[in-house]
Amino acid sequence: MIPAPDPAFAAEVRAAIDGKTKPPGSLGRIETLAERLALLLGTVEPRLGTCSLTIFAADHGIVARGVSKWPQAITAQMALNFLAGGAAANAFAGALGVSLRVVDAGIAAPPDHPGLIDRRMGAGTADSASGPAMSAETRDAALAAGRALALEDPADALAFGEMGIGNTAAAALLAAKLLDLPVEELAGPGAGLDAEGLARKRAILAEAAARTGPLTASEALAEYGGFEIAMMTGALLGAAEARKPALLDGFIAGAAALAAERVAPGAARAFVHAHRSAEPGHAAILAALDADPLLDLGMRLGEGTGALLAWPLVKSAAAMLREMASFEAAGVSGPS
Amino acid sequence: MIPAPDPAFAAEVRAAIDGKTKPPGSLGRIETLAERLALLLGTVEPRLGTCSLTIFAADHGIVARGVSKWPQAITAQMALNFLAGGAAANAFAGALGVSLRVVDAGIAAPPDHPGLIDRRMGAGTADSASGPAMSAETRDAALAAGRALALEDPADALAFGEMGIGNTAAAALLAAKLLDLPVEELAGPGAGLDAEGLARKRAILAEAAARTGPLTASEALAEYGGFEIAMMTGALLGAAEARKPALLDGFIAGAAALAAERVAPGAARAFVHAHRSAEPGHAAILAALDADPLLDLGMRLGEGTGALLAWPLVKSAAAMLREMASFEAAGVSGPS
Repeated sequence: MIPAPDPAFAAEVRAAIDGKTKPPGSLGRIETLAERLALLLGTVEPRLGTCSLTIFAADHGIVARGVSKWPQAITAQMALNFLAGGAAANAFAGALGVSLRVVDAGIAAPPDHPGLIDRRMGAGTADSASGPAMSAETRDAALAAGRALALEDPADALAFGEMGIGNTAAAALLAAKLLDLPVEELAGPGAGLDAEGLARKRAILAEAAARTGPLTASEALAEYGGFEIAMMTGALLGAAEARKPALLDGFIAGAAALAAERVAPGAARAFVHAHRSAEPGHAAILAALDADPLLDLGMRLGEGTGALLAWPLVKSAAAMLREMASFEAAGVSGPS
Repeated sequence: MIPAPDPAFAAEVRAAIDGKTKPPGSLGRIETLAERLALLLGTVEPRLGTCSLTIFAADHGIVARGVSKWPQAITAQMALNFLAGGAAANAFAGALGVSLRVVDAGIAAPPDHPGLIDRRMGAGTADSASGPAMSAETRDAALAAGRALALEDPADALAFGEMGIGNTAAAALLAAKLLDLPVEELAGPGAGLDAEGLARKRAILAEAAARTGPLTASEALAEYGGFEIAMMTGALLGAAEARKPALLDGFIAGAAALAAERVAPGAARAFVHAHRSAEPGHAAILAALDADPLLDLGMRLGEGTGALLAWPLVKSAAAMLREMASFEAAGVSGPS
């Protein structure tokens, strides 16, 4: 989707970064981030002033099998908590000047709140351990809705989060199919399963994965994805299409990113992986995407909290490239 | 200086964090950071709205021996670059809404600029390889000037940076004396020495360290410190006295933090180590202070760039504790 950078422009970007008043490479990963942003935006003076967070919320049929410690009702309750401003994502977004919207991608029993954006694909997915989570038509509708939400977003950078009890199970199944790895290796404790609960989750997911053979990314999204994961995949494709940096949280967003890159190779050039999740599946996804998250703060909440905390780094990297003086312009000497 | 937290209040803080609408511990290090901020500020509703960056600039007599790849004139040139708004610290501070001031703690040939805050302790330190870098009186004046600068600062959080060609050499010597470790193990390439240059730097520093026996922190500051390091030490003590979080950059700021903690045990409860430096001495300092920086982005510039990038995390941690709803208040169910 996004082509490899033009070598001449890439050299121009590198020279602009190296000409800034600092020892070459001394800003470490902020320099490589600035380089990626410049290549994505097609300018050596990238301007990233605003960021939005879109949280996709949905429920999962497989939760009835016992893959989560938390009741399904939490999804709707947390959606309401986002809308009331009481969640971690609200606190971070407020502190960091990021706008926040909440999309009902398919909550089982959605809360009645005028702020909730209705893109419902159903009252939760079907149980993917016994059949497809959603139809091909619903998957396409979810992808299209996500794409449209990203394209209509006026912010310079788009952060994405999710809420859905059971969605680490869906993400593990999706990643297992996309990476051709045993789902047991990718499944983790999610929001706090103990060893016994995790063993049960892994057994259920192994049964679900055994239901199908090799799948394309599109097929895997319908068979195992959640509505929020499919819609986020569409939103990531929309962000890439708009050449806007997409800030990705952890494991769930990583699974959506992997699906997006498989659907439209090159899309991942727009993705900024914000935070390394403790979920074992995230490491496998990151390796497949050759990505190394900016932050590693031991968080495992989702909601876009990791993506939010990376926004100041993204903003600062762009500002570095746009605003720093060159050695020449500042009259600063080089090394002896 | 700052006493150990009252156990009852510490329990109250922990309960407040655990009662927020998230799985316990799911915000990882943001939770432990919020806990530290609450204990420092003495409230379960910490408010951190503003942050300032103070950059201390000074020169080092030991540079004449050849411990840096860069000419001494860079210190003054970069001070001017800060004042003109062209440095990395300016770009980050602007992006993150942090105010910035530049203090001449003892630049050899300071630039003529009305914005430069004059706290000059001399035209660079003396060569610490042949004698004390500064007198005890000058050290005390530097500590007092730094403390006053911190106490008069109205910001809620105080970030500190430095600029001084040769100051990784001074920091390595200071840390070696405070930690009773061979200085060769603590000295690194600084702003880009090659293997040969590093070997020369290590030999010079070993000679300098051999000049004295065991020293107190105050003695070590006078023997080996830079003016900017001594003044930052004073500022850190002032921040701790004011019970404000002090955001510390990398190796140089770490050496000042270690000195401050030795001068006034307990001061380190106010310190937030922002970024892990690649300089080998930083790891030793962090181990001594039992500290683990929030960021590891491969930066090695100084100027407060690391401290600046940690400010959004500090601000977000405080906002999390102050603004997030409790399970009870939000009507969100607990785990089953």
